[in-house]
Amino acid sequence: MPHPFDELNLEEVKGSHSVKWSLFPEDVLPLWVADMDYPVAEPILEAVRERLSRRIGYPQGAGDPELLEAIIAKQERLGLKGLQPENLWLTSSVVPGICASVLALSSPGDEAITQVPVYHPFLIALKEFNRVTRANPMQPGETRWEIDFEQLESLVTPGTRMLMLCNPQNPTGRVFTRAELERLAEFALRHRLWVMVDELWSDLIYEGPHVPFASLSEEVAQRTVTLTGPCKAFNTAGLGGGVAISHNKEILARMQKVSLGIGGHPNVLSMAAWLGALRHGQPWLEQTLAYLKANRDFLTRFLAERLPEVRYTPPEATYLAWLDFRALGLEDPHAFALEHAKVGLNDGAIFGEGFKGYLRLNFATSRPLLQEALERLASALKGSVVDS
Amino acid sequence: MPHPFDELNLEEVKGSHSVKWSLFPEDVLPLWVADMDYPVAEPILEAVRERLSRRIGYPQGAGDPELLEAIIAKQERLGLKGLQPENLWLTSSVVPGICASVLALSSPGDEAITQVPVYHPFLIALKEFNRVTRANPMQPGETRWEIDFEQLESLVTPGTRMLMLCNPQNPTGRVFTRAELERLAEFALRHRLWVMVDELWSDLIYEGPHVPFASLSEEVAQRTVTLTGPCKAFNTAGLGGGVAISHNKEILARMQKVSLGIGGHPNVLSMAAWLGALRHGQPWLEQTLAYLKANRDFLTRFLAERLPEVRYTPPEATYLAWLDFRALGLEDPHAFALEHAKVGLNDGAIFGEGFKGYLRLNFATSRPLLQEALERLASALKGSVVDS
Repeated sequence: MPHPFDELNLEEVKGSHSVKWSLFPEDVLPLWVADMDYPVAEPILEAVRERLSRRIGYPQGAGDPELLEAIIAKQERLGLKGLQPENLWLTSSVVPGICASVLALSSPGDEAITQVPVYHPFLIALKEFNRVTRANPMQPGETRWEIDFEQLESLVTPGTRMLMLCNPQNPTGRVFTRAELERLAEFALRHRLWVMVDELWSDLIYEGPHVPFASLSEEVAQRTVTLTGPCKAFNTAGLGGGVAISHNKEILARMQKVSLGIGGHPNVLSMAAWLGALRHGQPWLEQTLAYLKANRDFLTRFLAERLPEVRYTPPEATYLAWLDFRALGLEDPHAFALEHAKVGLNDGAIFGEGFKGYLRLNFATSRPLLQEALERLASALKGSVVDS
Repeated sequence: MPHPFDELNLEEVKGSHSVKWSLFPEDVLPLWVADMDYPVAEPILEAVRERLSRRIGYPQGAGDPELLEAIIAKQERLGLKGLQPENLWLTSSVVPGICASVLALSSPGDEAITQVPVYHPFLIALKEFNRVTRANPMQPGETRWEIDFEQLESLVTPGTRMLMLCNPQNPTGRVFTRAELERLAEFALRHRLWVMVDELWSDLIYEGPHVPFASLSEEVAQRTVTLTGPCKAFNTAGLGGGVAISHNKEILARMQKVSLGIGGHPNVLSMAAWLGALRHGQPWLEQTLAYLKANRDFLTRFLAERLPEVRYTPPEATYLAWLDFRALGLEDPHAFALEHAKVGLNDGAIFGEGFKGYLRLNFATSRPLLQEALERLASALKGSVVDS
């Protein structure tokens, strides 16, 4: 029997005016921006519908107390303990948290270290705010991308203020191990760096566990702000919802101050959806994870069999595949995929210098659509090899 | 037959965790922050429910094209013509628009002129961002509050950059006439001021019409940013939704730049609610306006008969009453109302210097609750007179 996700109603998907399905012409299969083509979980929809039956007046400034408690309980389960509601600051999504933390924890001209490739808003924020990005490129290993700890040390200067970490990492899909995180924490403490860690993907893990960076020690917690939200796991990007978490309330106060009143107040329906997800979303999440994992494995087999020139290590988390097309000798793989295969992917170049020739593929679609996209790529590449 | 708004389900209202009903102890009737105790219009709820049936992935950055078109059509009907989607910038609500316009249109130390009393985020933004507020107090007339045009001229210095206008005006309820607005526009153009006009209340007018400030002339439009949204008319404050509108795209570009990525992307359900309101909300709005007007008239009669010492002119718009309690000789009317009448109002002092002794009362509740609050006030004041 086919899985329901195998038979997506594309009219619903296309009728949503999403940026994913609007950017490219109709004949392009869009496997780029990070949301899923699947319907939102019924318990979340139900929570929003139920919330509509009350009132949607101004919420309490800090957010619904029940939601704050549920976020704290969730973090406790992950291993991040000792949080109180005042250790949480709700944001409209994670990107505002990234921007606010850069503004709060560094000054113009200061340097921030981050592993690349990385979620591009890290790099955009640093550039926009005239901070200096000190990029530490991940190194391709046999089975996973590795942090280059030796180079990391060489990046520190007297102007280095921040370490910005994405864990699980978008776009490599790495789930950093406790040992790796401890080494990073020791590094950050030794150099007295502030740490911003984006843990938005921590629910979408195939090989875990997820270790919250701030859980490593009280000393680490005092220098860290953790950003997360419900959007990736529960496919509610259009509803936003994010939280900055820190045991160091001074960090949150500075983030709020630099936000200049521009973040607005929490959104009542976004909070209801998030609470619904935390209370009743786990079964849907587990089913979705199983489907995503099977998609990942399908993709892995397809690449091995049909596109062995594409270098790739299967992600341990996320629904993103980080594909090295450089061996194919295409001038611009992103434009090639779009033009010749009619597949819309993310250009690797936006995730850090040195990643031209890479593509990021979002496999959170139906198996038939994923297969169709991969067949198109394989076919176009075969044609290109014949042509050349 | 009682009106449905006469018989509000207070359990629903209290179950919403709204700031209005959470701030004060249970025995206080809260008639303060500006949302309504009425249920949200069914067509809006229906639009949100319908939107849930599609997907809630990342929206297009500029917002749903259908919503942008509907906002433009609405502004056309109000008289603000010639707008294209690129003249609109969606914000999460109006306050972020206020903050962004102050940051975009002035520099630290610059001066901004505004009529007071005024929606306090105007004053907070100016203070927070180290701008100088040049307040032009409204003058009490027989039937309405009047702009003091003579004093206005005296407030201009070489450091004056902005005129900030709230029309209809929160908290006086004034709907400025075309003649008044033309005089203000002439003043702004003559002194080369940028104009930020908050027209959030323009749908809630008893004696109109509403004249969009930017509609006065092309020259005025080029110096103006208009802020509005659906929250007041359609009682969706918890969903946010705002728009900055300007014929001068440079103003919007500067506002976006100073927003530093902190505003986040548009919220899919907020946009759906707004679109539902614009398409199908008018009958509900008209019914609600009729009920509010009757509440206003009830309040006017009650004050005249039972509390003639409270100076008041009926608002031409909004569901706010601006009450001058100074003749009663109370040291702190706000604390008095809270403590002795168990009625929670807004302290007038926050709306501008010189308005200590004033209270703002939100009459968008059921008639019985409004009456109960007024009886409590009258009774407490009678007690206080007897006691003294």
